Amino acid sequence: MPRANGSQPPLSTTPFQLDSAEAAVIDAIRADGPLSRTDLARRLGTSRASMTSIVNRLRATEILIEVGQGKSAGGRPPALLGINGRLGYVAGVDIGATSLDIALANFRGVILERHAEEADVRLGAEPLLGRAGQIIDDMLARQDASGEWLVAAGIGVPGPVEFSRGVLIAPPLMPTWEGYPIKAFVRSHFPRATVVVDNDVNIMALGEREAGGGQGIDNFLFIKIGTGIGCGIICKGKVYRGSDGCAGDVGHICVDYNGPVCRCGNQGCLEIMAAGPAIAARGLELGQSGESPFLARRLQENDGALTAVDVGDAVAAGDRHASQIVRESGRRIGGVLAGLVNFYNPRAILIGGGVANIGHLLLSSIRQATLRRANPLSTRDLRIEYASLGADSGVVGAMTLALEHVFVVDG
Amino acid sequence: MPRANGSQPPLSTTPFQLDSAEAAVIDAIRADGPLSRTDLARRLGTSRASMTSIVNRLRATEILIEVGQGKSAGGRPPALLGINGRLGYVAGVDIGATSLDIALANFRGVILERHAEEADVRLGAEPLLGRAGQIIDDMLARQDASGEWLVAAGIGVPGPVEFSRGVLIAPPLMPTWEGYPIKAFVRSHFPRATVVVDNDVNIMALGEREAGGGQGIDNFLFIKIGTGIGCGIICKGKVYRGSDGCAGDVGHICVDYNGPVCRCGNQGCLEIMAAGPAIAARGLELGQSGESPFLARRLQENDGALTAVDVGDAVAAGDRHASQIVRESGRRIGGVLAGLVNFYNPRAILIGGGVANIGHLLLSSIRQATLRRANPLSTRDLRIEYASLGADSGVVGAMTLALEHVFVVDG
Repeated sequence: MPRANGSQPPLSTTPFQLDSAEAAVIDAIRADGPLSRTDLARRLGTSRASMTSIVNRLRATEILIEVGQGKSAGGRPPALLGINGRLGYVAGVDIGATSLDIALANFRGVILERHAEEADVRLGAEPLLGRAGQIIDDMLARQDASGEWLVAAGIGVPGPVEFSRGVLIAPPLMPTWEGYPIKAFVRSHFPRATVVVDNDVNIMALGEREAGGGQGIDNFLFIKIGTGIGCGIICKGKVYRGSDGCAGDVGHICVDYNGPVCRCGNQGCLEIMAAGPAIAARGLELGQSGESPFLARRLQENDGALTAVDVGDAVAAGDRHASQIVRESGRRIGGVLAGLVNFYNPRAILIGGGVANIGHLLLSSIRQATLRRANPLSTRDLRIEYASLGADSGVVGAMTLALEHVFVVDG
Repeated sequence: MPRANGSQPPLSTTPFQLDSAEAAVIDAIRADGPLSRTDLARRLGTSRASMTSIVNRLRATEILIEVGQGKSAGGRPPALLGINGRLGYVAGVDIGATSLDIALANFRGVILERHAEEADVRLGAEPLLGRAGQIIDDMLARQDASGEWLVAAGIGVPGPVEFSRGVLIAPPLMPTWEGYPIKAFVRSHFPRATVVVDNDVNIMALGEREAGGGQGIDNFLFIKIGTGIGCGIICKGKVYRGSDGCAGDVGHICVDYNGPVCRCGNQGCLEIMAAGPAIAARGLELGQSGESPFLARRLQENDGALTAVDVGDAVAAGDRHASQIVRESGRRIGGVLAGLVNFYNPRAILIGGGVANIGHLLLSSIRQATLRRANPLSTRDLRIEYASLGADSGVVGAMTLALEHVFVVDG
């Protein structure tokens, strides 16, 4: 794909600087696909002559190219302008607590290759980011390109991120990453790349908006249920991060003032009462007491440990006690979501994360509890579903985020 | 103020149709005051020649006028372009359950006259809107203008509004208004006016953003505590209404699954447990039992009735039991706000409504409960304050809303 088989990297540095008129043209083509100069002039309310000059600037930097012909309105058919897929490559990197997922895409966002492997974030930032760089290098080599061809990388991490600086702030799962300059490290490997770092839940919400259950929906929530419970907020089509970048911290909303003490120090947070470890701990009690013969057996097979997925398997096998655990967790989560629905009035709630794999009973319990308590007008057209991209929502979202930041608007 | 002392109304119809480049010019001047053509061209990334043509179109419709001269950069000082305050008048109407507040402003949003009177929304839409029309007519007459000079009216109502149609949906305080065509009625009186109808809480949030405690803040919440509890959400500087227009319905978030039954049919809603009537009812118990001598006396003076303000007076007089009621209400409200802070991460929470007048103890209790439970990163720079415009936030917000909708962008 590179011009002159990769020997000559593209000249311009990233992020690409655009003026607001150029950015409006790129946005229109991103949203609706290739357009003619006349279409663009009409949409943006400028003259045909001004549009020709804007398009000429974008063609000079090779960001736009002619990709075909539109329908003739009588005379010569107009040329359609599209984004130049060959301008460079984009990487989407989704770092989980125990996994590393990477996708390489062209500049139009078409995925060319994917890779997934187990990893341990606790090993630290450099080993993990170094390994990610090596995987991307290999992918680029298979495209006959070098590291200089990478123009953008989006990186999702399982912890709170200060978005503007791209650093983790007090991340409970990966304390050694605190404050680590992820962007600088990645740029030392890929000197031309625009690097964006965000929380995994925001990235997944973006992936679902781009290619999953959130397509075409202005306002929706992505709820990740795993070791913790987090929420990505899509507001008018964009990730909403709040005033300090920490919006969506729903796992520490209180559901019981007298509940158990959470790792955050408060009592009765949603997370400590309903996330994966809470389900697993209650399953362990059932297995140890023998109330659930299924879980007692599983406990023996697993050398005394159980996960939320084991409890889900017990539900699938018809275990009444296990069903009670999952229902209780769904009821707690749905109770909090009902309040968020009243406040935010989203069109959809998409549920993902490891615990979303334990079966349909969790979803139906969440749904029931949400609908029972929320404002009827807010729930009339509300969809509550499992996220549709599964494990892919992270890499797709990371790639999308990178593409959204590779252009910056001047002045 | 009108040209030719009001005898010749402006020619164009409203809302004023703009293309996106014209709208960008208006937005820039709205945000930063008068600007030169060169300033505008630089900000919008267009050539000086294109900007001259955009400005010429806006001057031809008299939306922009030259308002003075900028600093010379060596040669002739450049003309500054501003919005034409004389293009017409704008009314802000704030309808409360028992009050009618109206302000008349010029097209730049400078308030020329205000009026407040008692009113009863239960009398129905036509008597109340007719009275509002008469007040606006009188105000216009004092400006030597007629009804045709009103180019925009914003109307706030104390009930749920379907924003696009401007009608009330199942309003508990004003059932006879359900589905009433408010916009059409107002336009029958003021044929050129762009009419916008919104919920009172959204309007108040907008007023605080424009001229109160929310100035310059991107993301904040306005909480109204009165007979009910509602929330106006400002997101990136704009009112966020949600997917069905009913975002901010925080009064029916559950705080106690075993609590009393609310008028919505659910148990333990925040509103039934913490709003004005809950405070008054608990005050009544204290007065009747004699536990609070202050409230027992007030009960006699008031012929057996008490309001939340009476309980506030008891607090001010040092009544320990009354303080307990107010603290309890603040604790409940703060508990819900803590969850909303975790989710939305706003920069400020502004508290208004009738019950906000009962004194500082309510605010300090709300603050304490919010800060105790919310995510520390979200509360580091969070302000929790009483709204600063008091009774004016409604009219200012209604006027602001009208001005925001008097221009529409084509295509």
